[in-house]
Formats: sequence, C-alpha cells, structure tokens
Amino acid sequence: MIAGATNMAAHFADRLLAEIERKKTPAVVALDPVFENLPRGLRDAADPLRAIRSYAMRVLELVAPHVPCVKINSAYFEAYHAPGIAVFDELLATARRLGLITLADVKRGDVGHTATMYALAQLGDGDRRSDNSPDAVTVSGYFGEDGVRPFIAWAAPRGQGVFVLVRTSNPSATVIQDAPLANGQRLHEWVGRQVASWAAEPETLGERGYSLVGAVAATRDAGDARRLREAMPHSIVLVPGYGAQGGRAEDFAPYFKPDGTGALIVSGRSVIFAYEKAEATSRSIDWEQAVAAACKSFADDVARLITRN
Amino acid sequence: MIAGATNMAAHFADRLLAEIERKKTPAVVALDPVFENLPRGLRDAADPLRAIRSYAMRVLELVAPHVPCVKINSAYFEAYHAPGIAVFDELLATARRLGLITLADVKRGDVGHTATMYALAQLGDGDRRSDNSPDAVTVSGYFGEDGVRPFIAWAAPRGQGVFVLVRTSNPSATVIQDAPLANGQRLHEWVGRQVASWAAEPETLGERGYSLVGAVAATRDAGDARRLREAMPHSIVLVPGYGAQGGRAEDFAPYFKPDGTGALIVSGRSVIFAYEKAEATSRSIDWEQAVAAACKSFADDVARLITRN
Repeated sequence: MIAGATNMAAHFADRLLAEIERKKTPAVVALDPVFENLPRGLRDAADPLRAIRSYAMRVLELVAPHVPCVKINSAYFEAYHAPGIAVFDELLATARRLGLITLADVKRGDVGHTATMYALAQLGDGDRRSDNSPDAVTVSGYFGEDGVRPFIAWAAPRGQGVFVLVRTSNPSATVIQDAPLANGQRLHEWVGRQVASWAAEPETLGERGYSLVGAVAATRDAGDARRLREAMPHSIVLVPGYGAQGGRAEDFAPYFKPDGTGALIVSGRSVIFAYEKAEATSRSIDWEQAVAAACKSFADDVARLITRN
Repeated sequence: MIAGATNMAAHFADRLLAEIERKKTPAVVALDPVFENLPRGLRDAADPLRAIRSYAMRVLELVAPHVPCVKINSAYFEAYHAPGIAVFDELLATARRLGLITLADVKRGDVGHTATMYALAQLGDGDRRSDNSPDAVTVSGYFGEDGVRPFIAWAAPRGQGVFVLVRTSNPSATVIQDAPLANGQRLHEWVGRQVASWAAEPETLGERGYSLVGAVAATRDAGDARRLREAMPHSIVLVPGYGAQGGRAEDFAPYFKPDGTGALIVSGRSVIFAYEKAEATSRSIDWEQAVAAACKSFADDVARLITRN
C-alpha cells in the first residue's frame, strides 16, 4: 500500500490494523506542542503559534516513517483560539497526507443534539471526509450511551473511529474511576462493559473482528489491564503513558491479545521534546535528529509487543 | 450598578448573586444556534455562519434586559472550525458588553498540563481577562480532582467560576451517573461530594458563602435534587431543562435554598427558537418580538423561585 493512499471507505479498525502491520509497531506519537518546550532556536519567534506550527509540521515528517499513527490534543491549539484551530486542522491534514492515521484527542462529551454537533465538528462534515478530518476522536463516557451514540453514528458510515475514556492515568482517577460499585465492579469496569456492548454490535465491527468503538485505558496495574482487555474483546485500547510518564514496553503487554493485536501505545514528550535534556547540558544539538531517533527507539521498543505469542 | 461595569476582580459567585438580584430572576438563556432553526428570513443566507452570527448577536440584545446570565455551548461554533471559534469569542465579548454574566458550556476535561491548557484556552490568558473570556466554564468531573483543580487554580485569581458536571439530563445518565456504589451512594452523589469538598475550601469562597466551584445537575427527581442541594451547600447549581425539555418552574424549586439563593435555571430552544411554532402555522411573525416575549415569560416564571421563603 502506498502511504497516503489509504482507502477512506474502509473500516477504521481494519485500516488501523493494516497500518500497524505495515509499520510493524503499535506506536502512537502524541503531538502536544508547548511554546516553552520548543527547540531553543524556535523559541525566539515573535509569534508563538507560528513557531508551534513550523515545529509540529516538521515533527510529523520526522515521525511518519516510524509510526502508524499520531494523536493530537486540541487543548494545545484551542489555547490560541481561532488561529490555533486553523493550525490544528492543518496538522491533521498534513498528517493524513504523510500516510498517518490521525487521532484527534478532544475528549468531548455532551448529549443529544449537542453531541451530534460535536461529532460533526470533530469528525468532519462530508460524506467523504474533508482533508482535515481525523480518523478517530476521543470522547467522554460519563454521559452513558446517549453521549457516545451520536459519535458512533457519525463515524460509522465515514470509516472513522471513536475511543471512549474508560480509565485515565492521573492519580485522582482512583477516587472516581476506581470507585467500587454495589455490583462488585469498579466504575471504570462498568464503563468498560458499556463500551464492550457498543463494540459488539455488528454494524460497528470491521472484517478483522475489531470495532470502530475503542477505549482509552491508562492503568498500569497488570491485573486491571488484563481485565479490561478481556472485558472489551472487540475494542482497540489506546494506552498513554510510555516514556516520560514512566511506562516501559513490558508494562503494556497485558493490553495485547496473544496474537499481538488490540492496543496502541502512546508516547508524547519523551519523543517530541527528546532534545530537551541535551539542550540543557550541551551547547548545540540537532533537535530534528533527536526527535527522529527517540521516535525510532520508541517504535522499536514497543514493536516486540505485537509479535505473535 | 451600571450594566457592563461589573468589577472584574470580584469573586464569581458574588458577582453572579448580585446580577441575579439586580435582574430579579435566576434565569439563564442557553444560546445554541443551529442554522436550520434560524428565523425563516435568515435561512436564505449563503453563509450559514454569518447568519448564525447576526442572529445570535441580536438574541443577546433581546435577552439582556431580562436575564442575568447567558450560556453558550461551544459545540455549535466548533462545527464551523476556526471561523466558528472567532464568532464564539465575539459573542462572549458582546454578551459581556451587554452586562451579562457569561458561561462557556465547553464540558472540557483532561488531566495535568493538558487541563491547564484547556483552562487557559477557555477561561482566558490575561491577569485581567480579555474581552472574550467567559465568566465561567463547565468541566467534566470524571477525571477526579486532578482534572478539575487546574481550572479552579486558573479561575480563582481572575474572579471566574467552574461548574462541574454532576448529573446530566439524558435518559442513559441513569446507567453511569446513577450507578449504585458500594458505599450506598450513587455515582453522581459521590461526584457531588467531591465538588462539595472543593467548594468548601476557603480560597474558593466568596463573601456570600458561595464558592467559585459550582455544579451542573439536571435531575428533576425532587428527592435527588434536594439531596444534591444539601450535599453541596457552597455550590451554585446550574440546572438545564426548563421549557422545551419539559421542566416547569416548580420542578426546580428543590435546587434553591430557603433564602432563594443557590441555583440558576437554564432555558434554551423554548426562548431562542420561540418563533418556530408560529412560523409553522402563520405567514409572518416578528421573530425578535417572539424571542423577547418568550425570554421575559421565562424570566418572570422562574423569578418566583428566588422569593425568600
């Protein structure tokens, strides 16, 4: 398959699995640029958003040979209001031209007609997706089915995907998401059950047995990860936390099935800001080389997780 | 007090209570414009966003004399990407110039640095708020304290507020938000307890005993509403559902304290699309007059809820 020639009508999960196999790694780079963390030379710019744009465009080119997928968080662009959103859209379009599967990490959530408006806004508004439409979005699960269904309905005919937040990585997630329910499950397991039920519907399933409805899960407790993997057999699990957040490749193994499918591992700052440590100690470093090397190292490291057992 | 001369350094809850008393009603108009629902004459426009902008600007002028506060949901503007965000910002600035307290209904949620970026994006980035910064935002509570704290930290020194989603109005909210916990509470009560603890911190409290940390609660079960009111004594509760969603003024009474403080009642389409029924049956109707009349009727109807018992 030629990069950038992805068939748009194809099912999201099938396209994603094909790209993971083509690049031989389940690695996802999170591109969340912050002006203060840009390479030294770019921080001199008078226009922070313009500097962020140049940097992020180049990062996409640097990581595209190594990973199947990038995740871009809208918060870092919303901070620059309308011009920031224009850059966010431009980056999604560029990533797609580079043959990358694109995840818009927007964590939107609302109900009824408003949820449909968010789906339209974040997944695109054409029967054929416009250039800047991402391949998938992240959504909140707190509203229950009414909040997620409009995103599924929007994504399905367009070959797009939806990742529902199940268990996040922050310390205080234990208070809400791990709250024990009267039925013996913890809240995030209960949300996972909901996700599993939507993901089991035939109309959300692709040819490979995975659904367009995925999940975001970040616990590094091996038992919890295994339980979530088993509870959501049709969902691809998006797992943040590699690298700067402390996760090593082996910590993510429980999110994969024995055949090596089922999860995407995300690394952010340890790749995109890979030059920071060197910059702090040496006078000059080729930031592009540092990012490319860190990306390749990350991609290679997690590649062994998809080796069939 | 002169409209528009609100003291920006003052505490959010104190400002809000003063405006409720000045306008003598706890009514909030939700301005969520949809092109297909615009007045007939405006739907001929070649540029839907431009039509939405004209309409929404006029609606703000029409409702400003009657209500203390407007809520604008970002989804309806995100659908138009960067130009939509520019209009969203322009409407917030206009509402503020008209002396209205502004709530940006964005339901954002994330953790750590990303939550701070969302706070910066949605609450504004100056020590003194820029013209288009809202007075408060809505946020998700699913992440727990880590997800909410950055918004509180951002809002507090700027005299802004944060409304945490506790119990939404959609039917499937029962599955997640009403899930019974092992401790005997339902999930939304547990989230409410978290909100109550943040709202009880002295640094979030205003002079009138209310916190900058409010809650969104939409259950119309009188017992649930009363329990939430009692569990969150320092929080102003934002309650959607009046009018088109079926709520009558008396249904909202349990959200108020005996002294008539503590809640805001939201009406959306029954005010802003008040001309629709007449348009469907008659040849011509003055849509502006219909909106103003519906707003006044709503404001008067819920005004009796703040009469001291």
